[in-house]
Amino acid sequence: MIKAGIVGGTGYTGVELLRILAAHPQVELAAITSRKEDGLPVADMFPSLRGHVSLAFSAPEKADLNACDVVFFATPHGVAMAQARELLAAGVKVIDLAADFRLKDTAQFEQWYGMPHSCPDLLEEAVYGLPEINRAAIATARVVGLPGCYPTSMQLGLAPLLAQGKALVNESTLVADCKSGVSGAGRKAEISTLLAEAADNFKAYSVKGHRHLPETVQGLQAIAGRPVGLTFVPHLVPMIRGIHSTLYAQLLPEARDIDFQALYENHYRNERFVDVMPAGSHPETRSVRASNMLRIAVHRPAGGDLLVILVVEDNLVKGAAGQGVQCMNIMFGLDEATGLMHVPVLP
Amino acid sequence: MIKAGIVGGTGYTGVELLRILAAHPQVELAAITSRKEDGLPVADMFPSLRGHVSLAFSAPEKADLNACDVVFFATPHGVAMAQARELLAAGVKVIDLAADFRLKDTAQFEQWYGMPHSCPDLLEEAVYGLPEINRAAIATARVVGLPGCYPTSMQLGLAPLLAQGKALVNESTLVADCKSGVSGAGRKAEISTLLAEAADNFKAYSVKGHRHLPETVQGLQAIAGRPVGLTFVPHLVPMIRGIHSTLYAQLLPEARDIDFQALYENHYRNERFVDVMPAGSHPETRSVRASNMLRIAVHRPAGGDLLVILVVEDNLVKGAAGQGVQCMNIMFGLDEATGLMHVPVLP
Amino acid sequence: MIKAGIVGGTGYTGVELLRILAAHPQVELAAITSRKEDGLPVADMFPSLRGHVSLAFSAPEKADLNACDVVFFATPHGVAMAQARELLAAGVKVIDLAADFRLKDTAQFEQWYGMPHSCPDLLEEAVYGLPEINRAAIATARVVGLPGCYPTSMQLGLAPLLAQGKALVNESTLVADCKSGVSGAGRKAEISTLLAEAADNFKAYSVKGHRHLPETVQGLQAIAGRPVGLTFVPHLVPMIRGIHSTLYAQLLPEARDIDFQALYENHYRNERFVDVMPAGSHPETRSVRASNMLRIAVHRPAGGDLLVILVVEDNLVKGAAGQGVQCMNIMFGLDEATGLMHVPVLP
Amino acid sequence: MIKAGIVGGTGYTGVELLRILAAHPQVELAAITSRKEDGLPVADMFPSLRGHVSLAFSAPEKADLNACDVVFFATPHGVAMAQARELLAAGVKVIDLAADFRLKDTAQFEQWYGMPHSCPDLLEEAVYGLPEINRAAIATARVVGLPGCYPTSMQLGLAPLLAQGKALVNESTLVADCKSGVSGAGRKAEISTLLAEAADNFKAYSVKGHRHLPETVQGLQAIAGRPVGLTFVPHLVPMIRGIHSTLYAQLLPEARDIDFQALYENHYRNERFVDVMPAGSHPETRSVRASNMLRIAVHRPAGGDLLVILVVEDNLVKGAAGQGVQCMNIMFGLDEATGLMHVPVLP
Repeated sequence: MIKAGIVGGTGYTGVELLRILAAHPQVELAAITSRKEDGLPVADMFPSLRGHVSLAFSAPEKADLNACDVVFFATPHGVAMAQARELLAAGVKVIDLAADFRLKDTAQFEQWYGMPHSCPDLLEEAVYGLPEINRAAIATARVVGLPGCYPTSMQLGLAPLLAQGKALVNESTLVADCKSGVSGAGRKAEISTLLAEAADNFKAYSVKGHRHLPETVQGLQAIAGRPVGLTFVPHLVPMIRGIHSTLYAQLLPEARDIDFQALYENHYRNERFVDVMPAGSHPETRSVRASNMLRIAVHRPAGGDLLVILVVEDNLVKGAAGQGVQCMNIMFGLDEATGLMHVPVLP
Repeated sequence: MIKAGIVGGTGYTGVELLRILAAHPQVELAAITSRKEDGLPVADMFPSLRGHVSLAFSAPEKADLNACDVVFFATPHGVAMAQARELLAAGVKVIDLAADFRLKDTAQFEQWYGMPHSCPDLLEEAVYGLPEINRAAIATARVVGLPGCYPTSMQLGLAPLLAQGKALVNESTLVADCKSGVSGAGRKAEISTLLAEAADNFKAYSVKGHRHLPETVQGLQAIAGRPVGLTFVPHLVPMIRGIHSTLYAQLLPEARDIDFQALYENHYRNERFVDVMPAGSHPETRSVRASNMLRIAVHRPAGGDLLVILVVEDNLVKGAAGQGVQCMNIMFGLDEATGLMHVPVLP
Repeated sequence: MIKAGIVGGTGYTGVELLRILAAHPQVELAAITSRKEDGLPVADMFPSLRGHVSLAFSAPEKADLNACDVVFFATPHGVAMAQARELLAAGVKVIDLAADFRLKDTAQFEQWYGMPHSCPDLLEEAVYGLPEINRAAIATARVVGLPGCYPTSMQLGLAPLLAQGKALVNESTLVADCKSGVSGAGRKAEISTLLAEAADNFKAYSVKGHRHLPETVQGLQAIAGRPVGLTFVPHLVPMIRGIHSTLYAQLLPEARDIDFQALYENHYRNERFVDVMPAGSHPETRSVRASNMLRIAVHRPAGGDLLVILVVEDNLVKGAAGQGVQCMNIMFGLDEATGLMHVPVLP
Repeated sequence: MIKAGIVGGTGYTGVELLRILAAHPQVELAAITSRKEDGLPVADMFPSLRGHVSLAFSAPEKADLNACDVVFFATPHGVAMAQARELLAAGVKVIDLAADFRLKDTAQFEQWYGMPHSCPDLLEEAVYGLPEINRAAIATARVVGLPGCYPTSMQLGLAPLLAQGKALVNESTLVADCKSGVSGAGRKAEISTLLAEAADNFKAYSVKGHRHLPETVQGLQAIAGRPVGLTFVPHLVPMIRGIHSTLYAQLLPEARDIDFQALYENHYRNERFVDVMPAGSHPETRSVRASNMLRIAVHRPAGGDLLVILVVEDNLVKGAAGQGVQCMNIMFGLDEATGLMHVPVLP
């Protein structure tokens, strides 16, 4: 059994980790920390866990995280990098759901997250936890920085196009029009995500720049091995879970005869958590609700030169906690899908 | 033109007051105060008001509220009672949307609101602003304490039963099972009313006791002229606006032959904002959305001895701002429906 | 492995059965019938099942249901009773999610469902599939009629009160104010449950009489061994899944000193799928979302004589498909919770 | 007073017309037809209209539409063109909310709507009812074909860019990523727009081609006087009302120094129902809920060469009924905003 600890389990990615790990056949939940909620049984905060999780939150200094095999950080940005070194020294693997180990460029990290990076050496060692791109590196990683929810959908949606030896689309004018449920904003007391503000409403936000942009560009460039230009426009959808990314790429003339449906199916034919749907499909976010699956559909409206890629995922699962567990499975040599075969909840 | 001021216009009852008053043909919006937002144009906070309200928030000491004819308090409890005396002295009428002038018993006020009442004399003078019950007193009032949103629906739903010379129902075992949209919780940063918490969810709350209970009992007893016993169970509905109260009253044997449909229709036959629907109706909250109308349906399932009264209102209009304007119209001798004839927004 | 067939898998209870059975370790999905969708892979209609269910719908005459060990009917009322006899003759157990085997009184069935009962003998043999009440009978049953979604919540909510040797509450004036998500109305093209009609809205319906009333009264009387009088008022909540029942019972004077919290906890202390929450709790429907759990809280507002019982369940799981699988487990001698230990999905 | 008739008032655009016209100071509602609902008071179907609309539906042959000054068609496609000739002959002006008089090319009409056009001569005469583009022609029109909901937002969002003498953006690669509430699908019994299907869900639809594409291209080309290429991807949002269009246009090098904020503000400086918001704004659909306003924000992320235009409107008002009344006001020489100054309903 893998002994797993969670730092910061009071947010949405934390409770989702608990939902998944509580039923994982190879995991023993060893500790979950929260200074503020020290002593409170987790199931008192989240009654959905009654009968499934008997742990109580404990203050960090009381939790023996060093005795864990793996520790997940479901914390605000900045926490994981402050604690990772000690854990690694104790032989504990670290999986960060926040942004501390995503951006390889510390200047970029500082620019977008407003704090200096405290352990550039670990950052260099850290592996970006997107299994469909980085599986081999994840297998041997000590520190994994999990992708953001939007970046997961954008990268997996564009990877088959960019991973070819030569450019198939105009790689400098990619557009990602993304839509997310409000759980992506976290379990934080804020007016803008109140039901009375966000329900029966739709809006874009952060059009001038969002933290997930540099991370995604970094990832896309790694896939392509070439510079990539991306415009990313996030929107808030009045729903709880789910991300729908609508991706636009302008075909190059020399790529007009490619069968992109076949290209995508072929690219992902061995992936357990990426489903390329039949041609003409319109994936719905609810078709992946509460599961680790990501679904893709490839369109070319009117047979023209604009590819339209539709991608859906559950932002809390494939976009966060589920992907973390997928990485953990890989890091510990388990079948990658262990504990992750939830059938999506529909309706 | 009536010069109207608003203290505390950054919450939902405040913006609703602005929506209604901005289009009121006899009102000039003179001032709206907010210490925190001093200088900010109201329409910058609420873009829905762009082109309709040109006022900016001003700090209380800058706003010449004493020059108003009427001042509405859309503030937390405790603010109106601190400022009312000075306004009254200046000849300004006061309409409080909070609870400062609702409960006649100061001990009860202190028990439920956790603060002593600072002006018992004004409290004694204040009129409870439920026009269908207190119209004459409102007409001459200097201070009006508007009912809470739930109490409006409960009192108007039960009044025809209790207003008779003798008891028709068991007045000691009344039950009000009430359901409210989340705007009733106000525009406050709280986790429990986030969309990700409150959507696709339903729960009761405050079952052991809610502030609107003593107010409602006080009102029902005033209507009946007899002691009344009420159990009130509020619930939170994943919607923005609307209250639906389902009221249960046990018929007394001597009342079994009464035509309650006729009794209700007759009781409210002259009311502009109470609509007794045809027998067998199931009023929907959306049928009064964004309007000052309250609708009632009277049921007697299986012809038995339990009366079931269904009441719907928009909690922000008839349950708050609209009722405030209705009182203002009465206090200033206008037609009671002036500026309040909005057609409900459906769908 | 239990070979399971499903008749009528295109509705919400059908797809929920598929979600649960596809992951059930002791079940092999053998057939799913739909005349209209003959040949269509189930996962084409419900993409959430891609990778989990490879079956296609087949016309009834093509499906070899007689070779199944158990057949679930997720059909409109009237279908199961037409086909049950032949299946039973072939040694197949039958679990009906519709109403054909709920009401023991055929006259009552005809009155509420508008059709004569076609096999009164099977009806007599059939067992009402509420394990917490009828476990032993279910274990040996050939035909199980599953309770309706509302009746499950009302009966389990009131059972501890009624199951005592003598009356503790006024058993003739029970009130159930129930609220359901719209999936309870089924996957049927109807205007009244369109999102544009039902969202941001709340209403009661069927106040003069609902089909779940006679079934619930029958069940409560069986529990009590005495006549029971119940008023049942259902409401529609703008959410997908979930039922919240608020139950009111007037205490008899001789019961005033009973510790009802203890009484409930004791009554359900051995139940896997009934959770009596701590005193003062307000269970939320989302705390059981997508799980077979039902949660109860017991209140006595202001220490008075009215008991208020709050009950939540997922109408599609404990209120339908999950309860069906729970019964199947019992009928086939499996651990009752096999395949039913889903952690509820929150948020 | 303008005598107005409505053909087909049982859908969402019909009830919205009623909401607006019932309060219009210069309109008398003369007739509303529905063969199916002949005799039914309109307010029995839509209780929101109780006390505001006393008309009953009447069968077409009973309604004296020829005595009206104007008749609105809130009907399925094909109805208006069948009845327009007779009305025009009687001197009645016709405003069609459906598509009969939108597409000038009858072959295109037939291709997208699956029926031949029955009166090409009237089609030629008909004016496209987008006042901000066609005001003068509308003023003298006998037949107005109102734009679709999506096309209104796309055309008004792109017009300032295309209306210049020379191209500023790549006019052959425009992209419109549009999101609509479900009321856009109409008040029709369909499974896909049930709350249990569409809530807590997001999806694209009709990516390979939507009827609003040819109409929008026709309009944009008329504005530009040049060929235009547009990719239009509609999405369904789990909300009742509102359209949010996110428009992408690639700047031409020679346009890089243009101040697009100023260009937009200047273009619409005299418009009553188009609000160009301050630079950096993110318009929300709720900021125009239940009003005829359309709001636009102009972005240029990272100062790059991709313009991102955000547009919001209420699909039932500026996208349908409100725009119809705006056209009517113009056609009858009234102030264009008469009866249309509703303050948006927020929250």
